This record gives sequence, C-alpha cells and structure tokens, in this order.
Amino acid sequence: MAGDGTDQRALQYEQTLMYGRYTQELGVYAKEEAARLRESGQRRSVSERSRNLDLLEYDKGRCAKCRRSGYPYVLQPPAQDFLSVCTVRCQKFLISRVGEDWIFLILLGLVMALVSWVVDFCIAICLQAQKWMYGGLDSNVFLQYLAWVTYPVVLITFSAGFTQILAPQAVGSGIPEMKTILRGVVLKEYLTFKTFVAKVIGLTCALGSGMPLGKEGPFVHIASLCAALLSKFMSLFGGIYENESRNIEMLAAACAVGVGCCFAAPIGGVLFSIEVTSTFFAVRNYWRGFFAATFSAFIFRVLAVWNKDEETITALFKTNFRLDFPFDLQELPAFAVIGIASGFGGALFVYLNRLIVQFIRNQKAINKFLMKKRLLYPALVTLLVSTLTFPPGFGQFMAGKLTQKEALVTLLDNHTWAKQGIAEEFDFLGNAQAWKHPQVNVFVTLVLFIVMKFWMSALATTIPVPCGAFMPVFVIGAAFGRLVGESMAAWFPDGIHSDGAIYTIVPGGYAVVGAAALSGAVTHTVSTSVIVFELTGQISHILPVMIAVILANAVAQSLQPSLYDSIIRIKKLPYLPELGWGHHEKYNIRVEDIMVRDVRYITLNCCYRDLHNVLLTGHLKTLALVESAESMILLGSIERAQLQSLLSQQLGRPRRLEFIRERAAAEKKRTSVISNSISEEENRRASQEVRFQISTEESSFSPTRPVPQKPLKPALKRSSVVERPTELPPNSNDNSGIALKNLFCASPEMEGLEDDGDVEDDMTIREIAEWEENQLDEQVNFNNCKIDPAPFQLVERTSLHKTHTIFSLLGLDHAYVTSIGRLIGVVSLKELRKAIEGSVTVKGVKVRPPLASFRDSGTSSSENEATELHKLWDRHKSMSLPREPTSSESEEKSQ
Amino acid sequence: MAGDGTDQRALQYEQTLMYGRYTQELGVYAKEEAARLRESGQRRSVSERSRNLDLLEYDKGRCAKCRRSGYPYVLQPPAQDFLSVCTVRCQKFLISRVGEDWIFLILLGLVMALVSWVVDFCIAICLQAQKWMYGGLDSNVFLQYLAWVTYPVVLITFSAGFTQILAPQAVGSGIPEMKTILRGVVLKEYLTFKTFVAKVIGLTCALGSGMPLGKEGPFVHIASLCAALLSKFMSLFGGIYENESRNIEMLAAACAVGVGCCFAAPIGGVLFSIEVTSTFFAVRNYWRGFFAATFSAFIFRVLAVWNKDEETITALFKTNFRLDFPFDLQELPAFAVIGIASGFGGALFVYLNRLIVQFIRNQKAINKFLMKKRLLYPALVTLLVSTLTFPPGFGQFMAGKLTQKEALVTLLDNHTWAKQGIAEEFDFLGNAQAWKHPQVNVFVTLVLFIVMKFWMSALATTIPVPCGAFMPVFVIGAAFGRLVGESMAAWFPDGIHSDGAIYTIVPGGYAVVGAAALSGAVTHTVSTSVIVFELTGQISHILPVMIAVILANAVAQSLQPSLYDSIIRIKKLPYLPELGWGHHEKYNIRVEDIMVRDVRYITLNCCYRDLHNVLLTGHLKTLALVESAESMILLGSIERAQLQSLLSQQLGRPRRLEFIRERAAAEKKRTSVISNSISEEENRRASQEVRFQISTEESSFSPTRPVPQKPLKPALKRSSVVERPTELPPNSNDNSGIALKNLFCASPEMEGLEDDGDVEDDMTIREIAEWEENQLDEQVNFNNCKIDPAPFQLVERTSLHKTHTIFSLLGLDHAYVTSIGRLIGVVSLKELRKAIEGSVTVKGVKVRPPLASFRDSGTSSSENEATELHKLWDRHKSMSLPREPTSSESEEKSQ
Repeated sequence: MAGDGTDQRALQYEQTLMYGRYTQELGVYAKEEAARLRESGQRRSVSERSRNLDLLEYDKGRCAKCRRSGYPYVLQPPAQDFLSVCTVRCQKFLISRVGEDWIFLILLGLVMALVSWVVDFCIAICLQAQKWMYGGLDSNVFLQYLAWVTYPVVLITFSAGFTQILAPQAVGSGIPEMKTILRGVVLKEYLTFKTFVAKVIGLTCALGSGMPLGKEGPFVHIASLCAALLSKFMSLFGGIYENESRNIEMLAAACAVGVGCCFAAPIGGVLFSIEVTSTFFAVRNYWRGFFAATFSAFIFRVLAVWNKDEETITALFKTNFRLDFPFDLQELPAFAVIGIASGFGGALFVYLNRLIVQFIRNQKAINKFLMKKRLLYPALVTLLVSTLTFPPGFGQFMAGKLTQKEALVTLLDNHTWAKQGIAEEFDFLGNAQAWKHPQVNVFVTLVLFIVMKFWMSALATTIPVPCGAFMPVFVIGAAFGRLVGESMAAWFPDGIHSDGAIYTIVPGGYAVVGAAALSGAVTHTVSTSVIVFELTGQISHILPVMIAVILANAVAQSLQPSLYDSIIRIKKLPYLPELGWGHHEKYNIRVEDIMVRDVRYITLNCCYRDLHNVLLTGHLKTLALVESAESMILLGSIERAQLQSLLSQQLGRPRRLEFIRERAAAEKKRTSVISNSISEEENRRASQEVRFQISTEESSFSPTRPVPQKPLKPALKRSSVVERPTELPPNSNDNSGIALKNLFCASPEMEGLEDDGDVEDDMTIREIAEWEENQLDEQVNFNNCKIDPAPFQLVERTSLHKTHTIFSLLGLDHAYVTSIGRLIGVVSLKELRKAIEGSVTVKGVKVRPPLASFRDSGTSSSENEATELHKLWDRHKSMSLPREPTSSESEEKSQ
Repeated sequence: MAGDGTDQRALQYEQTLMYGRYTQELGVYAKEEAARLRESGQRRSVSERSRNLDLLEYDKGRCAKCRRSGYPYVLQPPAQDFLSVCTVRCQKFLISRVGEDWIFLILLGLVMALVSWVVDFCIAICLQAQKWMYGGLDSNVFLQYLAWVTYPVVLITFSAGFTQILAPQAVGSGIPEMKTILRGVVLKEYLTFKTFVAKVIGLTCALGSGMPLGKEGPFVHIASLCAALLSKFMSLFGGIYENESRNIEMLAAACAVGVGCCFAAPIGGVLFSIEVTSTFFAVRNYWRGFFAATFSAFIFRVLAVWNKDEETITALFKTNFRLDFPFDLQELPAFAVIGIASGFGGALFVYLNRLIVQFIRNQKAINKFLMKKRLLYPALVTLLVSTLTFPPGFGQFMAGKLTQKEALVTLLDNHTWAKQGIAEEFDFLGNAQAWKHPQVNVFVTLVLFIVMKFWMSALATTIPVPCGAFMPVFVIGAAFGRLVGESMAAWFPDGIHSDGAIYTIVPGGYAVVGAAALSGAVTHTVSTSVIVFELTGQISHILPVMIAVILANAVAQSLQPSLYDSIIRIKKLPYLPELGWGHHEKYNIRVEDIMVRDVRYITLNCCYRDLHNVLLTGHLKTLALVESAESMILLGSIERAQLQSLLSQQLGRPRRLEFIRERAAAEKKRTSVISNSISEEENRRASQEVRFQISTEESSFSPTRPVPQKPLKPALKRSSVVERPTELPPNSNDNSGIALKNLFCASPEMEGLEDDGDVEDDMTIREIAEWEENQLDEQVNFNNCKIDPAPFQLVERTSLHKTHTIFSLLGLDHAYVTSIGRLIGVVSLKELRKAIEGSVTVKGVKVRPPLASFRDSGTSSSENEATELHKLWDRHKSMSLPREPTSSESEEKSQ
C-alpha cells in the first residue's frame, strides 16, 4: 500500500500547493479509491479487504469524525468509555472549583508566549547566521552570492518539504481556515498535533530564510492548534472540555492570543482576531480574549526582559516622536492621500496574489512540471527573490541587506532622511545607512523598495510553507508612508504650522500611518490601527491613523475581497461570504427564490430499502424526516451517520449470525422444513430483543456514544453493486462511495469481538443476498435513532438578508423551508453563497434572480414577510403534489 | 383634565426619581385611570368620553406604538401616507446612488461633535462663573459660602425641574435604556425630540454646577437620540431609513459616537459602547462605529483647535511620561494591587448606589415627603455636597476648589508630589497647589478626596438629572492610583531598578492605571483601558493598565452586577441578564422546566367572542394561532394589535352604520317585517365586499399600513363591563384596561372622517348591545390579518444555555415550545430572566428548579437534547389533553 500513500500525498500536495479544492478533491479521491477497489475484484477474501479499508480509515476517519461532531448546535457524540466517565465524575468537582476557564487561558497564554519567543529567537539566529556567512565571504562576490542565495533556498525547501510530509494543512497563514472553523464548519485535520509541529518548525525555517513572509497569520493558527490540543489534554481531567461550543469560544480566544503574543499587542490582537475570524461576536467571550492575550503578551515581553534584550517592558518597535505637537492639522490631507492610495494598493496586492495562484494553477504545462518536482516552485521563487535582494547587486538600490524587522525599525525612525531633496546632509545611523546610496536619491531607493517588495511579497506568500502576509504588507505600507513623509518634509522644510514655533514634519509618523493603512486595506480591518499603536508604543497619531485606515478600507473593500476571503474562495472552503456594504436590494430576495425544492426526505413508515436508496442518491449530512409523503409534515432531521448505522444494524453480520443461529435452532428442534414466514417473524422478534438490550447497555454505560456501528462486510456494497447491476448503473461511483463511508464507520477493534460467535457463517453469497433483500423490505424501526426534533426552519418568504443573519448567527449548515409545518424545500450554505455572490459581484454588476425583480416596486420588505394566512390555508387544502407544492404558485407570481 | 396631567406627571416623577418600575407602574396607572373612568359613570355622552381618551392617548399612544413596532424581526407598520410613498419613490434612486450609510454617519458625527463641543463650552462658562463669583466675594466667608452653595443648588434644581417637565425619560445616564433598546425592546419614548432637548440642557446645567457627575453616559443617550431623530428626518427623503433593523445598527454606531465625541476616543468609544450595550455584536457593523466615532472625535478636536484652545489635535488629558522606561517590571505587583482594590471599590460603588436608591424608595416617610416637594431631594443633595467641598471649609482638605477636569489633570501630572513622605520639598504648580495643605500631608488629602468623592458620587448619581457616573469614578480611580503611586515613590525614592541608571517612579502612571481599573470595575468593561490611552495620548503603560483592568473586572464581576445592569434591575427594564462566568450547570436546565404551559391561543375556526375573551384575559403582544384545539398544530402568531383591529372592525361604527343602512334600505324596499336571518346574511356579504375594497386600497396606496383601526366607541367596553357583569366580575380591572387599549388604537383624525355618513346612528344602547352580541358570534375572518407564519420555536429539551443564546442573538421576546409541530408551551423573556436569576444569585447561592437536579448525574447534555422519536410519537398518538400534553410525562420523569 506504499504506492497509495504516495499518490495520496501527491494529491494533498497539489491541494495545498495550488490551493486545491477542499471538498471536491476529497470526494474525487474517495471515488477513485472506490473504483480501484472495485476493479481489483469483488471476490477477494474478507480479511484482505478489511485491511485495505483500515488503511483508508486512517485518513478518512477524520472526515467522518468531523461530520459526526457537526457544528456547535448539533449533538456531538464524543467517544467516551466507561473508564473516562468515572474519572470525569471524580475530577469534575475539583476542576469546577478551580475555575477552569482562566486556568486554561493562562496555560494557553503561557505556552503561546513561550512558542512565540522561541520562534523569534530561532529566526533571529537563522538571520544572524546568514549575515555572518555573507559577511565572512566578502572577499569573493560570487561566493558571497552563493551563500546569500543558497541559505534561503535550502531553508525554504526544507520548510516546504517538511510541512508537506508531516502535515500539508500547515501550509499558508491559517486565518482562512480558522475563519471557517469559527463559522462552525469543523475542519478537524487542521487542529492536530502533527499540524502544530509542522507549522511551528516550518514557520521558523521559512522566516529564518529572510523572505518577505509574515509570522502573524500562522501564529493565529498555531494558537488555535495549541488551544485545541490543550483542550484535548485537559479533557483527560474534566468533562467541561468536551463541550463543543465551549471549544469554539476557546478557539476564538486563541486567535486573539496568536496575534497578541506575536506583536505584544493584546488589544489589537483581540480586535484583529475578531474582525478577521468572526461574523457575529458574543461580547461575553470578550474578556477571554483580553485575558489570554494580555497574559501572553506580558510573558512574551517579560521573556525579552529576562533575556536582557530590553531593560523593561516596552513596545516591539518603539518610536520616539515628539508628544507636544505630533502633527499639524494641515498635514491631514497628506494622511488621507496615504489612506486612499493604500486602499488601491491593498486591493492590488490581493488581486496580484490571486492572479499568481490562478496563473500557476491554470497553466497546465507549468502545473504538471511543478507537480512532479514538488519542491521546485518554492526553490525557484526563493532564488528569484534572494537574487534580486543581493546587497552588492540590485539589493543596494532597495536596502536589500536589511531584514524585515530592521527595515521596519529604520522606516519608523525619528529622523528626516531627506531635506529639500538632498539626502546627503544627514547622518544615517546604524541600519538606516542601507537606505543611503551614493549615486541614488533616497526617494528612488524607497520607490524601488516598495515596488520590488510588493510583487515579491505577493509571490512569496504563494509558496507552500507556513507563512503570513501581514508583516510584509505592513513594511511596504511603512515604506510608502515614509516616502510620502519624506516628500512632505522636502516640500515643507520648516513645517506647515504658520504662527509661532517651527514644528518640522516627522516622516516616521507618516510611516506609521502608511503601515496601518496598507495592512488594513489588505486584511479589511480597522484594528490594524490599534496594532500599530501597540507596536510603536505611541498613540499620538491616532486621528491620522484612523482616518487613513478607514479610507483605505473603504477603497479596498469596494474593489476586492480581503486577502483571507480571497484565499477562502481560492481554496473553496465552506464559508459564507459577507453581505456587502449597504446592499439593500438583498432585502428583496427571498428564500423561495434560492431554495432547493427537491428535498431528500424519509418518511416515518418507510422501509430499509427506501433508506438505502435515499442514502445512495444524496450526500447531505442530515436528512429530513417527514410524517408521510402525502402530508409532508416535518418531524425532525436525522443525521446521515444515524441512518447508516440503522442500515448496517439491519444488514450487519451480528444480525445475520443471529438469523443463522435462529435457523439452526429451529432446524434442530423440528428437523423439518420451516416456512419462511415464521422464521422471519421470529427473527424480527429476536432482533428486537437484542436491540433493546443494546439500548439499555448504552444508557447505563456511555450515554453519549452513538449506536455501535458494526461493519457490514459482504453486505451493502455487494448487494448494491454486484447483485443489482440493473438497478444502479456501474458508473455511479457515489454508490460505492456510500458503501465506503459506511465501512469507515467501523472501528477496527470491534472486528475481533464479533468473530467469537458460536455459529459459523456458512451462508453462501447467494443466500446472503437473498437474506439482505428480505431485510431491506422490513419497515424501519427508528427507536434507537437520535432525531433532532427541531431542525432550523424558515418560511418561503424569509428574506435573504434575514436568512444570512440567521445562518451566520447560529452557524447553520442548512435550514428547512416549511409552510405551515410542511416541508417544501431546503436551503444550504451552498445556495446561500450562490445567491449572495450572484447578486453582488465584485465588479459592481448585479445579477439577480429573475423572481426578485418584480417585487422591487412599491412593496416594503416588512409587509411581504408575513404570508397571509388565507393563501397558505388555501394552498394547504388544495395541495396535491407533495414534492413541489408551491411551484405553481410561485410561477403565477412571477408572471 | 389639568389634574390628571399633574397626577400623571407626579407618577412619572416618582418613576424616574426613584427608578420606578417601568412596566408595572404604567400598568397600575392604566388600571387606576380605568377605574376612575368607570366610577364616573358609564352613561356619559360619547363625545365626552372620547375627549377623555384622546387626552390619555397622548401619553399612552407611545406605548401602543412601541408594542406594534415590536422587535427587529417582526413586521413594523410605519404610518406612511400616499404622499410620502410618492416622494419615497422619487428620491429612492438619488439616495441609493449617494451611498446613504456614510452620509448618515458623517452627519451624525458632525452633529454630535458640535453638541459635545457646545456642551463643553457652556459647562466651562458655568464653572468659570462660579469661580468668578466665589473669587469676587473673598472679603466675606459667609457670602462666599452662599455663592458657592447657591449656584450649584440653583443649577441642579433647574436641571431637575426642566427635565421633569419636558421629558422625565432624560433622567440618568441612558446607557441602561440603550442597552435595552439595542436588545430589541423598543422604548420609543426614550428617543423623542423632547428627550433630546431635555437631556442636552439638563446635562449642561447639571455638569455646570460642579457636582461629581459625568458626561459620558448621557452622551451615549444623546447620540442615540440624535441618530433616531436624524433617521426620522432622513426618512423624509428615502425609504431605507424606515428599516427597523437598519435603525438598530445605526443606534449601535451612535452609541460609539457618543463615547467617541465625549472623550475624543474613537477606538475606546466603539469598544466601550459594544461592551456596555451589546450581547452579540455583528462585525459587519464594526466599521460604522469606527467611521462615525473617528469623524466625530476629529471634528470635536478640530473645533478646539479652531477655537485656539489647542495648537493642534491632541489628547484631551495629555500626559508626558517618559517613553524610554515607563515602568519597571518589579512595579507590576503594585499595579496588580491597584487592580484588585479597584475591583472591590467598584463593586462597593455599585452596591452603595443601589443602596441609596432603595433606601429612599423604601422609607415611606421620606418617600412621601420628597414626593410632595419634588425638587427638594436634588437641592438637599447638592447642598450637602457643595457644603462639604467649600474650599475655606472642609474642602481645603480634599482639593475642593478643583473642578473635575482640573482634578484629573493634576492627578495625571508628571511630577512626584511626595518624596519620603514630605510634600513640602516640591513646587506645586498651578492647580496642583490645591492638593498641598500647610498642616496636612498630601496622603491625607488624597485619602480624604477618595473617601469623600466616593460616597458623594454614589449619592449624586441618584439625583434625577441627566448624568453619568463614569467621569466621577474615573477621577476617584485616578486619585487612588496616585495615592498608591505616591506611596511607592515615597517608599522607593530612587526607583526600584537595581542596575545602571536610576529611573524614579512616576505616580502619574499609577493614576492612569487606577482610573482605568476603577472605571472598568464599575462598568464591567475592559475597554476603559483603551479610553485612558486615548484620553492621555500615551500607550506606554499598556500592560499595567490591562493587568489592573482585568483583575478589577474579575473581582467586581464576581461581587456585583455592573452599574448599568444594576440600574436595569432597579428600573426593571425588560432586559435579559447575562449568563455568568462559566456557570456550566445551566446546561442542565431545559425549556420544559421554565416554560409556561398554559398558552393563550386562538384557533383557525374560532368566533369573535373567543377572540374577545382571549384578548381580555391575557396581555401578550402576540398570540399563537393553532389549527384547532384538538390538534394544537402551530400555524403562526398574530400580533395583538391585528386582533384588536379585527375585533374593532367587526364591532366598529362603520360596520354598524352599514348595518343600519342595509336595514333602512331593506325597510324602504319591502316596508314589511324582515326576518333577522336574511338581514344578517346580507350584512355579512356587504361587509365582506367592503373589507375587500379596503384591502385593495391598502395594497395600492400604502402597503405597510395596518388595517385601519377604527374606534369602537360604545362598543367593546360597555358590552363587556356593563351588559355582562356576571360573566366578568367588576373587580377585574384588566378588562377595562383592554378596552382602553383598544380605544388607544384610534387616531383622533379618523373620528372626523367617519361622522360624515349619510345615515344617522339611531340605534339605542340596547339595540347596539344586541347587535354586538350577534356580531361576536360570527366566525373570525383572518383574510386581512397579518400572520407571522414562522414564530420562533424551541423544543422542550432545548437547554437554558442554548435558549439564552438564541434569545440574545435574535433579540427575541418570546418563543413557542413545540413538539412535532404541536404547541405545548411558551417561553418569554420573563421566564428566561427568572430562570437565569433563580439559578445564579449574586451571593453565590444557587437556587435551581427542582426538575433540573435529577438530570445532573451522568447524562451529558448532547444526548438529552435529541428527543427520541418513538417517545414523541407515542405521545402524539395517545394525546388526549390538548392544553398540557406533557405534564404527566414530565411528572413521571421527576419521580
């Protein structure tokens, strides 16, 4: 099976390198796998197949688990055994006394501060090593170049390879994934220990290479990983950590910690993480973020003091602008210009980043080539970037020898570099000398720096290593601000203030404004302003920064999605887009315009065959349960896994063995031919007894465990594919996909337990098929099935706006559309996403569903939402078609 | 009716002075009023009564309107006439082009900045005038005292009187009310132009008096008023401003503007307003707050520059601490001590404030006396406070001559006042001299200042004038911080830092920390930290401030509710309390434990008499509509007003005139005796025609207008009270209350329109009663009735925690509890509030509903929420009692 593993890894590699399609790829993979299994012959021995599937189960179980645990408001059955129940009981009391929330948050903050500090320390060592190598070889330019270039290439390649092998999920910033997870869609594979290790080590190497990459995004992900792992660890001691919605709250706090310990910016961290990851924010969680982020930032800075890097706790990039007169009122237009230009720049950055990804993905030739040599792309990009920044080469014109941190420190410098256009008058101290070039003006250096770093950053962030884009963008923004500031200083050498004292212009202040504005534009946040205050330790430029950030946001948001939303779209993560700024026409689209009318449902009196068919044809997580096909009254929803376990119980080996045992017993007693009907009767009774026994066992031992899912080894799959080829065409791969999924539910430990029966499985394939056919005709017994009796319901007149709000607020995945209790449709995230994206395209062209337009004229939204009863009632009475009861009426309306 | 007006005003006075019970008092008032009307004889002429009721309508209509407009997700029918529809159409296009949101926000910011600046300016003049008077009379201490005392007494008395007369709703800070309004409960009377005027003028006078009162809370209210009025004004031009949920979003932004323009703190303003007013916050509204608050703060500070108060835009209370070494790591324990002590202090302040209010309210004698002389209480309190601060008297020991602003500036001063315990060594510059006393140590002055101001502020904020408590608390906190700082400075004269340079301790930094911590503890917010950074213009103390604020919050939140929540409880505003910190036992309470099983409902086939009876017995805003009493299938909910209008249509004068006309026509034709049945038949047909006509008119002219609510002058009330005394005991005041409410729906203009019929109302009282009895027996026609087809539904197993989340997220007022579509109960805010408060008392004693305890052992919450279908289904089949279908079962369970 080694070949399988490699293939699969290649597929995952493609996924992450090319921002592959999250859901689709997995589905395709499952189909291919299924097809291969089918081809290799159905007559394989049972043991061989099960081994096959066990191997698969390792990779796929995660998905199945996710599916089962669902979003916060749906029942999650954590696998919990008897032992842990006991320990939970004992420790519950102790834990509850200690006050578990703040202990968890302190631990999280502490761990993350340590991680952040260690990562920073390692990065600093890496960068120092590069400088040392470069400095030591100053006799030979070629050797110098080799050293300058090889070092980052090796580090980046290692980072890419390591991440790829250990956990491809660690690639990229992780903020888009966290946004999706906090939205309620559980991507469990993104929160494993492997991912943690891969992300931390990969990030350290990537940043140690000196490429224009950021630490902030990955730290959000690392903090979330840390919280998830800590939560899992703590759940050994207390039951509270098993609560799904609590874990989501803790993840939200962890995101704040991530930013907080990265920049030593607790307030900015909390706000940035809220803006970037949440749609609706519960104020009662606010303190968690503040508490953990403050503690984390505190420890992070204390470590620096203990390490004698700092004398006391200060800001990371401390500035020293004058306090008495930070800026003149008349400088504000310049700040506004920075804001607007940054807005365009930010949108361009997002666009460029997406363009690069899509270009590489779409060019088949490039794609195939890069696919084969997986680490070539990172190496090539690194080579290009580091060649261009080589200090004796082109790098001399763009301060190439400065690391990102050094560049930022010099850009926020308090001194003015250029006075009246001549840079030479001033002393450039320390690192600031890098900006000074004997032949070239400082303005040219700055412009080159901005332009080169701009595309380099956009390119570098597409490398498949753990990396963020915040810091590079921040530095570019600072450089742009500095450029404007230096220009202003050259234009008004004595400041603008007319009367009294002379206050010269401080270009460093412009750099602060530019940094906040550009990073705000790229991420679509206003809290970057708070981050710059905390980073620089000065708040004197608050109003210019706020004005610039807001203007930058206004411009950027009207042009492009944020960088994170852009990645979400590229990766096709299951996320709901925002309703844009004041798009009020969305009040006119209703659920009935977007809902899927052909709902998959099961009825209360259906037989197992119906169940089977429904499971085969659809792939929804939950299925609607209606009273009958005539009434269509919605009774609740059942999770797919529940139905699968019902089916596997009915067709499973234990039941078949039971049947054989019964048959054998009957044969022994009578030794005559038994009529088929009696045996069936007895069989049914016996199975019911067995089932009841199981259910009581469950309630006494582990009440949260789902109905034990027995594997159905020769059962369902063969019965549907092999024995009934006419009913289902062999091309329908979904089919085997279902069977596979059914099999994935099996836990390997259970197999041992079953084979110790006292009867031998002496049935032939033919007999088994016959028995299964009979079993399928029985009516479904829903007794042991967990049913959600209140799935979320909407009415057909609910507006898109309201639907969006409800979906985002409650983290819904789908909602049923009912009309006086009768199921008439279903809306899932997909439809909603389509509707929102269809009506608001980024270019400003609005495509609206045809039904929406006729309602525009004169009717207010409030009136339409109330469906008048008599209409509903008439419809109810005259209803004949159970499936599409309102289609005729809605067509009438559209006339 | 002058007497009525006075009584009523007295009652409102009591309400606001004593933090009267919002809902109850109004109900009591309505009952009293109704009783008086009844006593004065039913045989009064119709015109006289209607005049009576019109007068009432003036005060009560507001309530009725609120009730109708409801919470954001329910239909609101704004009164809109044909003309405005036309103008709306024309202007809609224009408005939508301009981008209405930011225009609105800019206008709001501009207006509020102007208001804030003007208020500040007036306050400064008032305070200057007092100083001038006090300074001018320095020859005679008695005259000086008189001037010192009279001035604030006059101002406060004027403020109290003015507010009382114009709009008693303007009393207090307004944040609790805003919290309630943003929760979705519309208190329209708090958002009128009168309240705006009363609040602004009352606040200016109150703060001009120099009492320890704050500006911040009222400014939140003023900004919201401003937004509501602006929104109303803008709705003349565009239809978008009529959207209720949009208005709520704008109110949230306005709260941010209020804080932002008050302190020139845009970021702190946004965060503080979110923390103080919201439970769940939509991140998509974030930019609104930032945008408006930044603009407002900008204009506010620009006005100061233009007025030559400042040279450029700076912070309000600019500090000038050293940047290179703001504090030593070893000072952190002192900061933590400040935080913890502030936490206790904050809780004490809230407790003291509530104690004073409750003491005055409970002492019958005091209460009665103060009731009679309404302005005595404010005058007495002012007299007491200003006597104690009289500078030549006791005031010399507590820097009494400083205004609040001056005190804060001196407390944040950069100099150290005390070195080694001796204050005299240093020069006290300017206002800081007030802290220096020849005989008394500066520590004693500070302690006296803190103690005296503490109770003075708690007392002063109970005066019925527009005032907040934030600023006084902030100053007290700063003084406390200063005290600790000075102590530290005296303890470590050369600073704590051991190696190298000497860094002395900066007591001003401690003052900043103390201010943030105490105000954070009183308001239960952490964003006060951001406010202090913005107020002082320095962020160097970020970590000490954050640590102190978080500790203060942790202590205060575990002891007392926040000041605003305390006022909400005192005023009994309809607000849902928060679930406390990590109270996980609330996961074990279910909706079935707290729901009201006796639901008022109407059936689809009920007659008008049932409607009438239901309306008489309950007072819920909406009523459930079920299919029939047997099936109890929930079809939707109908607003009370809709039912009332149905009933009034059925019994109204136009219909009766129609009946008379019909009868007259029939008499003319045949001139013989007509059988009763035929006339009724015709009558019904005719009325249906009329009704349909109305409905088409509505849809063409003003679709959002409710069914016109005709007054039923001799109708309902008499029929229920006079004619059927046996059916309803005369003591049941509810009865007439209902009738009154019915009558309030009448708009006075409509009366004129009706009387121009061509027939004379020649029916006798007897005949009318008979006719009404007949009318009541008809079956209700729900055709023109607006029905919400998807009222929010829960299932009986929904946990309290989930219910709370859903209620707060969606701003619900009530939710129906259903079991497979059948109505079995209802949960309203009241029950939820009771359940939460019952299980979490402030003292830490947890009272839990008896049913909740049995579930504690061993069952996890996730399993219980899924009701097993077979149980539900069995219950459905065996159901015999329509009203309490699950009572027997739940009793079973509790065994």
